[in-house]
Amino acid sequence: MVTRLPTVDDVARAAGVSRQTVSNVLNTPAIVRDETRDRVRRAIDELGYRPHASARRLRTRASSTIGIRLDPITNGVSGSVLDRYLHSLTEQAAARGMRIMLFTATDHADEIAQFRELRDGADVDAFIVTATQFDDTRLRWLAAEKVPFVSFGRPWGDDTADTPWVDVDGRAGVAAATRHLIGRGLERIGFLGWPGDSGTGGDRRRGWAETMRERFGLDDVALDALAIEVDDAVPAARRAVERLVDEGLRLDGLVCVSDSLALGAMMAVREAGHPRFPIIGFDNTPVAQAVGLSSVDQQLAEVASATLELLMGPTGTRVIPPDSDGPRSRFVTPKLVVRRSSHLAPVDEAGEAAAPETGNHHRKEQQ
Amino acid sequence: MVTRLPTVDDVARAAGVSRQTVSNVLNTPAIVRDETRDRVRRAIDELGYRPHASARRLRTRASSTIGIRLDPITNGVSGSVLDRYLHSLTEQAAARGMRIMLFTATDHADEIAQFRELRDGADVDAFIVTATQFDDTRLRWLAAEKVPFVSFGRPWGDDTADTPWVDVDGRAGVAAATRHLIGRGLERIGFLGWPGDSGTGGDRRRGWAETMRERFGLDDVALDALAIEVDDAVPAARRAVERLVDEGLRLDGLVCVSDSLALGAMMAVREAGHPRFPIIGFDNTPVAQAVGLSSVDQQLAEVASATLELLMGPTGTRVIPPDSDGPRSRFVTPKLVVRRSSHLAPVDEAGEAAAPETGNHHRKEQQ
Repeated sequence: MVTRLPTVDDVARAAGVSRQTVSNVLNTPAIVRDETRDRVRRAIDELGYRPHASARRLRTRASSTIGIRLDPITNGVSGSVLDRYLHSLTEQAAARGMRIMLFTATDHADEIAQFRELRDGADVDAFIVTATQFDDTRLRWLAAEKVPFVSFGRPWGDDTADTPWVDVDGRAGVAAATRHLIGRGLERIGFLGWPGDSGTGGDRRRGWAETMRERFGLDDVALDALAIEVDDAVPAARRAVERLVDEGLRLDGLVCVSDSLALGAMMAVREAGHPRFPIIGFDNTPVAQAVGLSSVDQQLAEVASATLELLMGPTGTRVIPPDSDGPRSRFVTPKLVVRRSSHLAPVDEAGEAAAPETGNHHRKEQQ
Repeated sequence: MVTRLPTVDDVARAAGVSRQTVSNVLNTPAIVRDETRDRVRRAIDELGYRPHASARRLRTRASSTIGIRLDPITNGVSGSVLDRYLHSLTEQAAARGMRIMLFTATDHADEIAQFRELRDGADVDAFIVTATQFDDTRLRWLAAEKVPFVSFGRPWGDDTADTPWVDVDGRAGVAAATRHLIGRGLERIGFLGWPGDSGTGGDRRRGWAETMRERFGLDDVALDALAIEVDDAVPAARRAVERLVDEGLRLDGLVCVSDSLALGAMMAVREAGHPRFPIIGFDNTPVAQAVGLSSVDQQLAEVASATLELLMGPTGTRVIPPDSDGPRSRFVTPKLVVRRSSHLAPVDEAGEAAAPETGNHHRKEQQ
């Protein structure tokens, strides 16, 4: 269907020279006689032949492209985190002459099949793996095949793993959030986390647990009494927190493993008659910004920058082979963003009456 | 630095045959004698040669890749719209065997330079252009160069333009939002829009203006008195709406050109002492969902599907040449999502049943 574009053979025929001579004109023109070079160049212009990147890739085996999986959209609050990483990554990669190739995969096995196809096709020079899990087969495959890659996320559950990674120190971020509430004189600070000991969720919980143990001498039983586990959904978090406060659990504050859970908790404590306490989320999503929720920001621009440094060196414009020396991992320290919840946040009748008419538009009773 | 990978020449040398014979074994094995074919295949296996996609691209001039510009992250409420489109696009493109290549550009001239580089490199088979503007030079360049593309956004300001596009019928979406408020018995429905007659913004404003003119016989002066223009930022919208209601403008409802502006308006009407009225946004962002803001949803999965249909036909797996027959444009009708603003709860009109065990947590005074 597509009109065939001119090839090297067409140029060679038109100029009455060999393929090799055309190649020499394109790649090492100095070794070609002036008259021949001019004739080949005229043929190139007349035919509209474009020596293209595929040919260059065949020679150099470099595509100047980095592959990363993009999942189907999730409508959740936190869905934007990897999107924001992708924006930073694309921008910073462009500054190093690299582009980003997106692909999809249904599971890890399928993702490995995609790695293989893109690697075999020399379509990409390196991969970025996200959402690492315990004993992640993707990391093992890429390492065994000596394909350059970096994971955004530690190789959870494999302390001997020597695969390159960049990760956000979630434990430090949640510890900072917990210390912030303690610094405001609060004591009974709860943790709203995900069920099970997922790598990321468990790590964030440790930031809270260690801080509470250190400051108040709480043991595991006391800590468990302050911890709630719920799937990452706003309504589930809302019901769980409602149930707990209805049952009489007293909380002075709540640190959450995600903004989704923090929003559910916010909804629960804003019920008329419910006690109010400060809530801190994790991910600093646009939603947190809009409703005035304090949250831990992952510093995704820094994560993107660290990813590229591990792949390409501090200022390099090429992917480094996987067995070269140099740093193999990088921890990024997240940053607590403290907000006062605003009038955009839901208010009940009591709160409404308490709001000043002009000037300070922020509510005082929350953070 | 990278150990050189085996080439066709290496295979040819090892098997004692010509490059052409190796190529025949790979592409048209039936024409090669059995003994020769076996020898070449042994050499391929022993050397670990991988006939790769770059070679295939050189032959077919097809990369199975679609290029699209990704801008640096904007922290705004609506920043997620193109991200959600990108997720749908990547997923649906994968189902047709296509991948998505991301690049960046500082302006239209730079984007055209990127088009040229990617086209010359045969890195992509087609482009998707977003955020079209009046007299968009990008569309003209791509059409003149006969590069396959579709724009998400009409070729504004050029009625004779015959470039392929898919767009959301923003006018119809805003008209539906306006009719929804009229149907609730409201009359003085304002429009909060962007300054100037931007293509998209002007189109959405017409949806409101035409509906108000038709139902209430308003003239331009009456319409202008109900219209506010402000840059797309939450605080600016909040101040503008505060000022107007302070000055005594009576509004029964407000339709907004974006969720950002709608959020600012929501904040203004929640001030103590301010009159409250229903507000409808545009884009149905995660933020709108979180705060219970009614909003017009662009139906981005359908936009992505229409984009690929224009590029590749209804079920095709290859990009169609730009001068072929077939539909050239597609309008997607957006959908009004009605919510009751609540204690942060995302609920739709029927959503009362969504949280039956805890009764009605939702505010009634807004929509």
